[in-house]
Amino acid sequence: MERAEWRRLPPCPRARDEHSARMTGPRYTPLVQTLPATVPFVGPEVQEREMGHTFRARLGANESVFGPSPDAVEAMARESTQIWKYADATNFDLKAALAQKLGTTQKNLIIGEGIDGLLGYLVRLLVAPGDRVVTSDGAYPTFNYHVTGFGGGLVKVPYRSDHEDLPALIAKAVEVDAKMVYLANPDNPMGSWNTGAEIEAALDTMPEGVLLILDEAYIEFAPAEAVPQIAPDDPRVIRLRTFSKGYGMAGARVGYGIGAVDLIRSFDKIRNHFGMNRAAQVGALAALQDQDWLQSVLTWVAESKARIAEIAVANGLTPLPSATNFVTVDCGRDGDFARTVLHELVERGVFVRMPFVPPHDRCIRISAGTPADLDVLAEVLPQALAAANADAAS
Amino acid sequence: MERAEWRRLPPCPRARDEHSARMTGPRYTPLVQTLPATVPFVGPEVQEREMGHTFRARLGANESVFGPSPDAVEAMARESTQIWKYADATNFDLKAALAQKLGTTQKNLIIGEGIDGLLGYLVRLLVAPGDRVVTSDGAYPTFNYHVTGFGGGLVKVPYRSDHEDLPALIAKAVEVDAKMVYLANPDNPMGSWNTGAEIEAALDTMPEGVLLILDEAYIEFAPAEAVPQIAPDDPRVIRLRTFSKGYGMAGARVGYGIGAVDLIRSFDKIRNHFGMNRAAQVGALAALQDQDWLQSVLTWVAESKARIAEIAVANGLTPLPSATNFVTVDCGRDGDFARTVLHELVERGVFVRMPFVPPHDRCIRISAGTPADLDVLAEVLPQALAAANADAAS
Repeated sequence: MERAEWRRLPPCPRARDEHSARMTGPRYTPLVQTLPATVPFVGPEVQEREMGHTFRARLGANESVFGPSPDAVEAMARESTQIWKYADATNFDLKAALAQKLGTTQKNLIIGEGIDGLLGYLVRLLVAPGDRVVTSDGAYPTFNYHVTGFGGGLVKVPYRSDHEDLPALIAKAVEVDAKMVYLANPDNPMGSWNTGAEIEAALDTMPEGVLLILDEAYIEFAPAEAVPQIAPDDPRVIRLRTFSKGYGMAGARVGYGIGAVDLIRSFDKIRNHFGMNRAAQVGALAALQDQDWLQSVLTWVAESKARIAEIAVANGLTPLPSATNFVTVDCGRDGDFARTVLHELVERGVFVRMPFVPPHDRCIRISAGTPADLDVLAEVLPQALAAANADAAS
Repeated sequence: MERAEWRRLPPCPRARDEHSARMTGPRYTPLVQTLPATVPFVGPEVQEREMGHTFRARLGANESVFGPSPDAVEAMARESTQIWKYADATNFDLKAALAQKLGTTQKNLIIGEGIDGLLGYLVRLLVAPGDRVVTSDGAYPTFNYHVTGFGGGLVKVPYRSDHEDLPALIAKAVEVDAKMVYLANPDNPMGSWNTGAEIEAALDTMPEGVLLILDEAYIEFAPAEAVPQIAPDDPRVIRLRTFSKGYGMAGARVGYGIGAVDLIRSFDKIRNHFGMNRAAQVGALAALQDQDWLQSVLTWVAESKARIAEIAVANGLTPLPSATNFVTVDCGRDGDFARTVLHELVERGVFVRMPFVPPHDRCIRISAGTPADLDVLAEVLPQALAAANADAAS
């Protein structure tokens, strides 16, 4: 067959140098001119390409190695034949199922391209250049990325004993007249949690016009005591959840928010209405309907976390309590030491990450893995520690 | 199995009325307060739910009823088992394949969540509140949505003889000191095109600091003469293309841009780095590698457009020339008449859309369909016209 299309779309010509030399580029906004071209996280594929080999165990991004429900896999595979159609911009079917499960209405639900996407929209809705936003020092960098990206001023509050310090966060919000406060509960990267009762009590101390962004990405793994009772219509808070963690669909990009009707409706002012992947929609719906699979995942994650803790202890390290699908492991020394341990693990084919700021950077963060993944961890961790100790002694 | 998760995440409690009553909501930005909560397009699923029945023919969103390459379907289905992994944030494999096909470098390519997503990023990069942006009156509403959403001032130029008027667009950009000019080539919704030579010549008249957004969503369907020769490094223009139309993957959300390195790099300042669906990435790669399928689609689309034109003529209507995968059909009277025709088609199960503004709203827009789709059109169009004529006479 003649490849008419290739003829029609020829290779791009070279730049005409006289033009490139004299032309200025586009005029970026003053804000954009101040932003660095950074990525909040370097992905494992990038590391693999740089190393020239693939990871033996992928335990760094708190993905669910156990995968999504087989029903979800089947639904996505089936929907691939229908991918020529744009997705339903209203996410009706998934929203209806979520509303039923959560005992709320569709008007209290927003579905978007992962919590990352929803965080971007939320910041855009509330934060104009110069507005203040409060978060914990060392909390989710992608949230910070969005705040900075819209010109917001980040005000950071230290953790207290490896926990996000909610009273201090709210006190700081009062002090700086912040428009929003970010709290991940359970927390990433420390795995710790505030109790639901603490969050409910703290909400009542929050001043008017402050929005609490309650990032519950890991809520399925948390104990009952970590789940606050918050009415969907409560205008003081929006809760964000995801199909990326417990439901094992990080690569699908489906997150949702639960909040007051006015706030939820506001997303329609700015969101990419036709931004959802059609197969991801049906996959999330099937995943939601297979709660047995989720229960199995929770069991496997609990077993995996117990083994990670055993491996840590066997190597003289201290696993921290975790209400998530990962274990944050205290390496017992400073950040340089933990960074070396991490580097040595990565070099030996174990993808892990670690907290960014002191004092948390004494730790490395290990996601729940399959038994085979943890065999690799058990094999490699002693080597990595030996190398790091040798490095520290030199 | 006991459903512990249901126990843990109980139905949301009711709002505490005393709180809801006294609490103010979050403080939106001044810009957001001015925005309407609109959707640029109402999707066919919404119409189907409102009507209570499904469409017999889905010919309204310029989707490719012929679907993606079977290789792409297979790749997406296979990748569903890997959806627990976040996608590669750098889109490396797809970008490498596109760079090779286009004869450019990866540094000249940005991949994002459809052209819609890329348009949002582009506007955010350049448009601060009050900045001017020039487009044609009646051109792509989603672009306008993004410009308004970032506070830009839209300045609209009329079409000339159903063609976007590029010299007038550039003259207007000079007049209002616009930061960007939008041109879809081939055009949606009229199906017309400027020649590549006209675009190349117009670029040379464009003042410094103006960026031409050249939306080439339909470029695979266009004649060779519609494709301009533009160097990827040319700082005056960014070209946007998609896997939604010719490649038949609208529901996957994969678009790409070709532009100067500095502009391309700027997307990394603001984009949702982990926003791509993992299966969509491999599907697009497989689709790109099956150029034979694309050639078949082009043939089927050409045949379908010819039959749509025949059906139009047989009903006393005038099909306009089209370089896209749809035919814009002049109903020969005013906008009210065409709107009635459209309404009657929709009521009878044929999903079509139409241009929004006069004089284009004398037309309806019919996407290429399967032979079975067009059988339905041939059956229903005379009925719809009869009803519209009766309505006009009453």
